[in-house]
Amino acid sequence: MARQERAIRTRQAILIAAAEVFDEVGYEAATISDVLQRSGVTKGALYFHFASKEELAQAVLAAQVTSLPPVPQQDLKLQESLDQALLLAYLLKEGTGDPIVQGSVRLTVDQGSPKDHLNRRVPMQAWTEHTQSVFEEAKRRGEILPHADVAALAKLFVAGFTGVQVYSRIMAEREDLAERVADLYRHLMPSVAVPGVLVRLDFSPERGLKVYEAAVRRPESDGREHEPEATGTAD
Amino acid sequence: MARQERAIRTRQAILIAAAEVFDEVGYEAATISDVLQRSGVTKGALYFHFASKEELAQAVLAAQVTSLPPVPQQDLKLQESLDQALLLAYLLKEGTGDPIVQGSVRLTVDQGSPKDHLNRRVPMQAWTEHTQSVFEEAKRRGEILPHADVAALAKLFVAGFTGVQVYSRIMAEREDLAERVADLYRHLMPSVAVPGVLVRLDFSPERGLKVYEAAVRRPESDGREHEPEATGTAD
Repeated sequence: MARQERAIRTRQAILIAAAEVFDEVGYEAATISDVLQRSGVTKGALYFHFASKEELAQAVLAAQVTSLPPVPQQDLKLQESLDQALLLAYLLKEGTGDPIVQGSVRLTVDQGSPKDHLNRRVPMQAWTEHTQSVFEEAKRRGEILPHADVAALAKLFVAGFTGVQVYSRIMAEREDLAERVADLYRHLMPSVAVPGVLVRLDFSPERGLKVYEAAVRRPESDGREHEPEATGTAD
Repeated sequence: MARQERAIRTRQAILIAAAEVFDEVGYEAATISDVLQRSGVTKGALYFHFASKEELAQAVLAAQVTSLPPVPQQDLKLQESLDQALLLAYLLKEGTGDPIVQGSVRLTVDQGSPKDHLNRRVPMQAWTEHTQSVFEEAKRRGEILPHADVAALAKLFVAGFTGVQVYSRIMAEREDLAERVADLYRHLMPSVAVPGVLVRLDFSPERGLKVYEAAVRRPESDGREHEPEATGTAD
């Protein structure tokens, strides 16, 4: 294994361990020792990649969006937007989900302290920009009602997803998250999509698994999940 | 001042101080000493009302919904639902808002630890039931599309509010919360309200202040905000 590849794998192992610790105990209670223990990496290796707990957390926050594989292309850009949300719901599932996404989402939503200097806007801003670019392309293709304000819509959809995620975590340990996400899109899309597009959207919550299989597992892979390389350059 | 009234005021002073501490540092970092210092109440008085930090937090969680004054009646129940959300947005404003609402919302949304035994479902469940009952009445009055599933809608609106609240806190320190709430309702209501009702709804974010004035300040009052008695029996 080349030295660079090894460094990327080490960095990724630290990031995953840190995300797990942040998800379990939150930013304030988490310690570098927890992350060392969990990752099995040496102190020297950890500090080579991350100078502080704050830097670690900021890397986990940044990886929330950049570590995700793109969703498969669809005829309709609005379907891709819905698929993105269903994929994210799938990755947030307790037990089977993605530790980086889960840890990062907790870091984002927990109110924290002004003193912790974490920039929680990073993932929210990235999601908003991503959503807006998808909606802009959808508008160019004529999928979106002409008067729609795509910048405001992007904020609304990101906020809406955040809300159903928090609600489903509190009320059902995220068991019904896919259903809540589908319901959100079902009720927002009539204000967004032109009728001919609206009737062609597939809102079924079960799409999440299919999208996950297509996006995360590579066609040529042996069934393993996405490899560290795919996310190693996360930030 | 009668003994009972004094006890209610003391309890309310403790609750407000606790909510402020929880809002500032979160549940885990908060201590009973912080609350004592902030409230100026004696240790004995505090423990007379609340046996532990957990009990205090649970009382703050319960007060999130029960401490709110009802919004003024409107011709349309769906307008009352929107007014309720705008009132809540107003009470969440940093600086001028309501400490119990703010502290309680933080306790609800922060992920916390399974070990803290806080039941964060209490306020979410109360909001969901309240919203559902408003929507049921709206349906009886013919304001809501006949196929609408009011139980699912109640979850969606509570989740949606939660999301715009978290989003606006992270991105804009809640400066644009009223606008985000109005935008949420503007985009969800076309899937909910019959057309004749939809065009009569007032979605302007500025309504929040008017609703607040009408709901929180009593008509006969001298301009003071709602008195402790109004919320003393919160749980």
